[in-house]
Amino acid sequence: MQYLTCDYMNGAHPEILKRMTEENFQARSGYGEDEVCRRAKEKIREACGDPSADIYFLVGGTQTNSTVIAAMLESYEGVVAAETGHIAQHESGAVEYTGHKVLTLPQHYGKIDAGELAAYMENFYGDANHEHMVFPGMVYISHPTEYGTLYTKTELTAIADICRQYDMPLFLDGARLGYGLMSFDTDLTLRDITALCDVFYIGGTKVGALFGEAVVFPRHGAPKHFMTIVKQHGALLAKGWLLGLQFDTLFTDDLYFRISRHAIEEAEKVKAWVRKNGYRFWLETPTNQQFIIVDPEEKARLSEQVTFDFWEQCGEETVVRLATAWYTEFSDM
Amino acid sequence: MQYLTCDYMNGAHPEILKRMTEENFQARSGYGEDEVCRRAKEKIREACGDPSADIYFLVGGTQTNSTVIAAMLESYEGVVAAETGHIAQHESGAVEYTGHKVLTLPQHYGKIDAGELAAYMENFYGDANHEHMVFPGMVYISHPTEYGTLYTKTELTAIADICRQYDMPLFLDGARLGYGLMSFDTDLTLRDITALCDVFYIGGTKVGALFGEAVVFPRHGAPKHFMTIVKQHGALLAKGWLLGLQFDTLFTDDLYFRISRHAIEEAEKVKAWVRKNGYRFWLETPTNQQFIIVDPEEKARLSEQVTFDFWEQCGEETVVRLATAWYTEFSDM
Amino acid sequence: MQYLTCDYMNGAHPEILKRMTEENFQARSGYGEDEVCRRAKEKIREACGDPSADIYFLVGGTQTNSTVIAAMLESYEGVVAAETGHIAQHESGAVEYTGHKVLTLPQHYGKIDAGELAAYMENFYGDANHEHMVFPGMVYISHPTEYGTLYTKTELTAIADICRQYDMPLFLDGARLGYGLMSFDTDLTLRDITALCDVFYIGGTKVGALFGEAVVFPRHGAPKHFMTIVKQHGALLAKGWLLGLQFDTLFTDDLYFRISRHAIEEAEKVKAWVRKNGYRFWLETPTNQQFIIVDPEEKARLSEQVTFDFWEQCGEETVVRLATAWYTEFSDM
Amino acid sequence: MQYLTCDYMNGAHPEILKRMTEENFQARSGYGEDEVCRRAKEKIREACGDPSADIYFLVGGTQTNSTVIAAMLESYEGVVAAETGHIAQHESGAVEYTGHKVLTLPQHYGKIDAGELAAYMENFYGDANHEHMVFPGMVYISHPTEYGTLYTKTELTAIADICRQYDMPLFLDGARLGYGLMSFDTDLTLRDITALCDVFYIGGTKVGALFGEAVVFPRHGAPKHFMTIVKQHGALLAKGWLLGLQFDTLFTDDLYFRISRHAIEEAEKVKAWVRKNGYRFWLETPTNQQFIIVDPEEKARLSEQVTFDFWEQCGEETVVRLATAWYTEFSDM
Repeated sequence: MQYLTCDYMNGAHPEILKRMTEENFQARSGYGEDEVCRRAKEKIREACGDPSADIYFLVGGTQTNSTVIAAMLESYEGVVAAETGHIAQHESGAVEYTGHKVLTLPQHYGKIDAGELAAYMENFYGDANHEHMVFPGMVYISHPTEYGTLYTKTELTAIADICRQYDMPLFLDGARLGYGLMSFDTDLTLRDITALCDVFYIGGTKVGALFGEAVVFPRHGAPKHFMTIVKQHGALLAKGWLLGLQFDTLFTDDLYFRISRHAIEEAEKVKAWVRKNGYRFWLETPTNQQFIIVDPEEKARLSEQVTFDFWEQCGEETVVRLATAWYTEFSDM
Repeated sequence: MQYLTCDYMNGAHPEILKRMTEENFQARSGYGEDEVCRRAKEKIREACGDPSADIYFLVGGTQTNSTVIAAMLESYEGVVAAETGHIAQHESGAVEYTGHKVLTLPQHYGKIDAGELAAYMENFYGDANHEHMVFPGMVYISHPTEYGTLYTKTELTAIADICRQYDMPLFLDGARLGYGLMSFDTDLTLRDITALCDVFYIGGTKVGALFGEAVVFPRHGAPKHFMTIVKQHGALLAKGWLLGLQFDTLFTDDLYFRISRHAIEEAEKVKAWVRKNGYRFWLETPTNQQFIIVDPEEKARLSEQVTFDFWEQCGEETVVRLATAWYTEFSDM
Repeated sequence: MQYLTCDYMNGAHPEILKRMTEENFQARSGYGEDEVCRRAKEKIREACGDPSADIYFLVGGTQTNSTVIAAMLESYEGVVAAETGHIAQHESGAVEYTGHKVLTLPQHYGKIDAGELAAYMENFYGDANHEHMVFPGMVYISHPTEYGTLYTKTELTAIADICRQYDMPLFLDGARLGYGLMSFDTDLTLRDITALCDVFYIGGTKVGALFGEAVVFPRHGAPKHFMTIVKQHGALLAKGWLLGLQFDTLFTDDLYFRISRHAIEEAEKVKAWVRKNGYRFWLETPTNQQFIIVDPEEKARLSEQVTFDFWEQCGEETVVRLATAWYTEFSDM
Repeated sequence: MQYLTCDYMNGAHPEILKRMTEENFQARSGYGEDEVCRRAKEKIREACGDPSADIYFLVGGTQTNSTVIAAMLESYEGVVAAETGHIAQHESGAVEYTGHKVLTLPQHYGKIDAGELAAYMENFYGDANHEHMVFPGMVYISHPTEYGTLYTKTELTAIADICRQYDMPLFLDGARLGYGLMSFDTDLTLRDITALCDVFYIGGTKVGALFGEAVVFPRHGAPKHFMTIVKQHGALLAKGWLLGLQFDTLFTDDLYFRISRHAIEEAEKVKAWVRKNGYRFWLETPTNQQFIIVDPEEKARLSEQVTFDFWEQCGEETVVRLATAWYTEFSDM
């Protein structure tokens, strides 16, 4: 049986557990004020090509999304996202819990469209009653999206331009960032993302770490007293060095990128296997998630070959997701 | 010039100002703990046909919506509303500010459809990941809607049935309730609404009062310590008797209903005038709001005859709203 | 029977009701965008001696406190107040409901002490762990205080100096401001308050209006999009001109000051009567509130002469409050 | 150099890292819906003597405190705590961020007094204006307290009795629970705590785990949909089995208790060493934290022997904390 339900079914890259074990009894300060965190941040700054980037380590994705969004919005502002954005659908209203509305745009296989964003902004400020409405104060995108799709450099630049025009931060949820950067079919680099976004995170939970997301605010862009805000959200890990150690390991010798590429290569195998076995793609993507549509008979057959995630029901047929990860070793069955 | 921009352009019914003046120097307790509030509540209970109704007076509509919704939802729940519902669009995110998401359904001239609500609920509980989503915990409708349309008794009963099936309170925003109840084209009575809803309010601001909304929780249904919740929301008026006095006046000798009917009669005159003057209806309604669509030339002509509210732009043409109210005296110009 | 329970037992100054009645059928725009509001603001700016002051009208005190505080604090900040401050004790946690802590200082008959504030700030920034604590982000005082006491110009200047040193706004709750300004025993003028505070309000509810508080942000100091914030808090009155009309009346021919002085003169009569009748002062103040302490027998006697408010119990004895207001006509009984 | 700054300076008990490494590549479901979590919960239920206890695993202490408190309070309620309680002082206002006030009682070396709690409750309900105040809705205590002190069974029973009388849940913060249970000077067992409290947690972060707190709701007492609430607070770990695995290890063969006892034994050595070296106790406790007071010369000397945490300044002298933990190996220097 191949486990393709999601990309966080195993623990961490063995190198991480090895170092955790080796450095277990080294006395360290709490809350990320330690040498290993400093070193990890330095390596990430280098990978991003921005020596002035502010970096913070948080534990998980929903936590990171709601903490960053609440920290960067004014009270009268909401965050613009695709209607299928993770914050709009699958985070139990964590953003609203902080007092902010998620303002939704149509999604195109998980992506928003710069033209539609521009139209939204024009309509908003063109509405005579907009002072009675929620101000769009930030744009949230995910890359790869929840559908495994990717923005091109042209698309991301167009979105960033609109954000700058309206003085709105652009926030990129990179829970699966490695799988986007190492896709065979992308022209967006980590340096591009650093240049175009006002804040983004490099996902660890789904890419080799036990847990952890590295939040990057390029160009000294962190909100004032962000550490206190993180604490207030219950998101400050006591043994912060556990996060630093993981990212230090992942950003040594390109480990993060190498294991991400592995997952992409495994995804290619999965795609070939899907075709060979006569399954139909609902959405074939350039990253680690593939979506196929199965009728009841196919679904039963598939269930004996791999584990998968239910995506949505279309009448009699079901869309399911097959995800590879850094740990996947797919073999034709 | 006829003033038809909205239904809150004048002060209060003269009888209210007369009584305010007469009783101005009567010493009264604060916060609604007074004789005139008690009397007003008694009269409203009688009009609703529910001697066990809990009644509270608040100052305005947005305030009432966010206070009632926050009081009745669990922290993990959101409120279901039409995408055009006032709480979804024009209250500056007041509901989200209390930590709750507004979950939107398609709108049909401002109304939600019982079938679509049922499907929404089935999909939600059918989704294997629904514990990672916002639970629908309450249904919000407005009657008349923001488009001046009305639910029929059959429609409201169908919605109420689904609410009961899922144990969700049904909340009816009655900011313009009088204009709905006194429409020539409705089969819904105040008693029906009392029987079918778990909470609703009888709007005063737009129907004869200086300000004030009477919130009715039928069948002793008020949330525990609702007065403290009202205070916490900054919604407790020090001189609460001002609210009691206004509703006592409005519910004496059917004043509320008589002046509502007057606005409906004036709306009929407006509709006749619209036709006679060759304007085109975008939406003709059975209540006090009418929507017409005008090209630039028509718009210029209309501007010299009446004041109106901008509704939306459709290419070159504009949808505008003409609203009558208890104080309107429309005369053919 | 003399009614001395509180200072909001009657309606409004008759001149206000007269104008409301006269102007009842004048068509006006909603939400404070009208001529009478503009005029009222101009008059208040003149009284404050600050032509650049931003002014907003809200309905009540708790609402104003929580809206202003939430608008001016960063998310990681709290508001410093006397432990007896209204926001700390009697507003049902309205400030906390917006997500902010009330940080308390000792009270001295309702006042905070500049030296203790300075020590608090030094301790906070001297604490190595202060990033795990709530940052003091604003200072709240009331003037007159909840105990009827007044800050001197020297005291207020000392507090303002510390606020400026730490770049914290100073907020003065003036729910009873008129009674402070017109005390026989004060050296603080409205212009001083405008010069020393970053935001304050001129109370209408307790000083001649039916309801309403005029919030003044000197020197163009209003938070960005404050009107939207007010709306979000459910604090934006649809018929905003009702607030403008009341303040326009109160700030015409010094009415606000004249009726405030009247309450002070009545308080002097009450104080004389207290002495003459052999009651003991618990706290004699220069404003409209007096506190006396009575044993059970005295309490019974007092109850037949005046109405009063329970303040606190001291063993067998009770502290009660006697409040005059703009409408009080105290006669020796 | 001995590291005594705090009790979370090292990683985890080696047995935990060993199992993490061994089970790293076992495919598991997310969010705590896995076999190892189920097993860990079973073992904790057994240790607590309550087969009906609901158990959830969260990541850290502040997160657990604010999530549990927000989940169990009504919107109009606050949580009662000692003025030195962690939630009152050192969590950056995380509780207030959820909209609730922390109501403080005097502290007695970190503990609250049942008599003072009873008096607080009586005063609250005896106050005629209590509906304008924050209702006390829950009691928070820490055991051991922030001062390393312990409640006796009699004291905890007295507090629990008052909580039951007023129908308020009693919440015990057990971030250091092991060090309390294994003190040589306590009569409170885990079963007592389970019987007396409505919710408590068994701290892992400070007692042998990399991170993690096991929240126990005795007698099926978990709030409805608590998992969704945890998600909404950003506190749901994707790889929940990491928490289960740690607690499964700690609750196998009494590991949690054995390593806690070790820290207590080390604390005895520290206490002896303090005495032998002529330092003065500011507070000697029966758990893993000791407080000594040093003058500048002593402080300099101490700094060369051990690391410690600054506690508070007393004029020229400084109170510092020396903490042992499960990993401490103190040797007389």
